[in-house]
Amino acid sequence: MAEERILLVRDVMTREVVTITPDEPVIEAARKMKQYEIGSVVVVSQRGEVIGIITERDLVTRVVAENRDPLKTTVREVMTPNPITVYDDTPLEIAARLMSERGVGHLPVVDKAGRLVGIIAKSDLIEFTPELIEILYLKKGSEREILEGGSE
Amino acid sequence: MAEERILLVRDVMTREVVTITPDEPVIEAARKMKQYEIGSVVVVSQRGEVIGIITERDLVTRVVAENRDPLKTTVREVMTPNPITVYDDTPLEIAARLMSERGVGHLPVVDKAGRLVGIIAKSDLIEFTPELIEILYLKKGSEREILEGGSE
Repeated sequence: MAEERILLVRDVMTREVVTITPDEPVIEAARKMKQYEIGSVVVVSQRGEVIGIITERDLVTRVVAENRDPLKTTVREVMTPNPITVYDDTPLEIAARLMSERGVGHLPVVDKAGRLVGIIAKSDLIEFTPELIEILYLKKGSEREILEGGSE
Repeated sequence: MAEERILLVRDVMTREVVTITPDEPVIEAARKMKQYEIGSVVVVSQRGEVIGIITERDLVTRVVAENRDPLKTTVREVMTPNPITVYDDTPLEIAARLMSERGVGHLPVVDKAGRLVGIIAKSDLIEFTPELIEILYLKKGSEREILEGGSE
């Protein structure tokens, strides 16, 4: 038997994480999202600890919708503090479930010492999805057949 | 045999689509995204035709990052015109593949007359994903067993 069958966070995470410090203006976060084509930037302290995450959603709801000046508003003011994190050996299914249940699109990945080693996004899961849906409908088909007694 | 086995766009699409007209200011688009907790607003003409889509990403990269005034910038200036659309009877797998390949997070759903009837988002697919990943790794496990000759 193969010893390792399950997909882990490290199999799909992005290792080059774009970060920002909390006292920078939010326009910097937006510029980084634009430059690197990403939907979130991890907020780290000067010592490299993960202290928050700032997402496209945060910029839309707390900056644009409220007409705040992106040059004068700091990252700290609009970030989500203390985000849920995962380890790189967390099963991918658990990470997907966390994102789905907590309604978050990104999870920073940390090592056992709390250092940032990656990030996983809902969109990283989507890469699998076309294949997965194909699998799912075979499954749904057989369930339906069972429920319907195999013919219609 | 069950006649219908495949998941279709209409099985997961959102039917209540939030819309905006192209001459409104982008702050209105941001307020709608905030109010309804959505990541995109469909841009429709006065006659109800789909002419564009405006997303969180558009607001971040074309408004916040460029420090444009959300009260003076119109939806037309930052929207993506002529978005890819799908029908409600398009197989979900095709829609997922389109989103993945074209790098878009949302597809407006139209009827054969071109009227807007729904919207499908990448995040609608994610709801399935934890279960799907579970299925995938069983599949990967068996493939690996075959490749490795069944033992290690």
